[in-house]
Amino acid sequence: MEKAKIILALDSLVDKGTLREACSYVHGIKIGLPLTLDIGVSGVKDLVKGIDVDEVIVDFKLADIGDIMVKIASKLDFADSFISHSFVGRNGALDELKGFLDSKGKKLYLVGAMSHPGWDDSLNSYTVSVIREVNPYGIVTPATRGDVISKFRHEFADKVIISPGLGTQGAKYGEAICHGASFEIIGRSIFSSSPLKALNKIVEKQREEVLRCKGAENRE
Amino acid sequence: MEKAKIILALDSLVDKGTLREACSYVHGIKIGLPLTLDIGVSGVKDLVKGIDVDEVIVDFKLADIGDIMVKIASKLDFADSFISHSFVGRNGALDELKGFLDSKGKKLYLVGAMSHPGWDDSLNSYTVSVIREVNPYGIVTPATRGDVISKFRHEFADKVIISPGLGTQGAKYGEAICHGASFEIIGRSIFSSSPLKALNKIVEKQREEVLRCKGAENRE
Repeated sequence: MEKAKIILALDSLVDKGTLREACSYVHGIKIGLPLTLDIGVSGVKDLVKGIDVDEVIVDFKLADIGDIMVKIASKLDFADSFISHSFVGRNGALDELKGFLDSKGKKLYLVGAMSHPGWDDSLNSYTVSVIREVNPYGIVTPATRGDVISKFRHEFADKVIISPGLGTQGAKYGEAICHGASFEIIGRSIFSSSPLKALNKIVEKQREEVLRCKGAENRE
Repeated sequence: MEKAKIILALDSLVDKGTLREACSYVHGIKIGLPLTLDIGVSGVKDLVKGIDVDEVIVDFKLADIGDIMVKIASKLDFADSFISHSFVGRNGALDELKGFLDSKGKKLYLVGAMSHPGWDDSLNSYTVSVIREVNPYGIVTPATRGDVISKFRHEFADKVIISPGLGTQGAKYGEAICHGASFEIIGRSIFSSSPLKALNKIVEKQREEVLRCKGAENRE
């Protein structure tokens, strides 16, 4: 079976057996700082060891000077990719992080816009300009505002776009994909009482929604 | 002796004896994420236990949705204060963090502007507006650009202002205080081969520079 276009967000500890099984359905996992503080770097390393996913993303929303961001990334060699904020700018910040990650064969995602209501979308012209300069592998845009995903997809046709904000935060599963995202990030909605049942339901809903919107496109 | 207007930035492990002695000269210490990843939350707790400073600041440059920032802060009960980014905005982000920290009697600093060359100062009118809305205890502004400190001091007469970017990053010790900062953040310049000697020299330089600028003010 083809893996669902889903990235699991891990912000608290999950049973490794459950995680292993959940991972067989999804593209990747995203490791948050809360989980890392709980179990430490070595705990995270153990947790992700042998997990069958295409991508392990560290999501600490890095937003510091280059020296500090490189120090952080260099301690997390289990990761394939890192998420950093655009707004810190390139010179002395993202240039150093990008250079370091390139040298290690790792990928950089930059936040284009965030999913909560307090994010000011008038900042997005600035994040777009930084993303153009830094040329990361991918972009993070909010599932909660489909029009924002569409705008970033229009600006960056070839970049991987990942979108948080589904389920608990309000967007429908599949909606972000329909607006141009490559993967949907799902966390709190899965790690409920029966995570695998919840995940199966979400995968199904995502497929239905994507079929619906792609079908609609094809009829246009 | 009055403590120097210095906050020690700890981004890597230092000998506890050295730290203890250094702390008797300074206002506070600032704990970075690199150090926390190295020794874990419990390691940081042990390191700061019994240290004689007025303030322990956690500087992870938080820049996430409220739920995640609150989760992170709740795991670090040894801290008196937390540094977060302004640009994430209030609703669903800084409002939740501020509410949580208020309820715990802890303090919030918001980044007004950063010290590296890639920070775009045209963003500062936005960070000023967020700082007004959120009303944090303090602000972080760059020692590398004294005019920026002065502008924030002018906007926020009563807030504590802390400034990184001295020494390795280029600003002279005392310069940020002269421009209106309350404390200077010093890290890489101290934790050299003889940290206490380096610290003493910096304290002296800071006092000289502040005497010079205050003297100049008094003659005006």
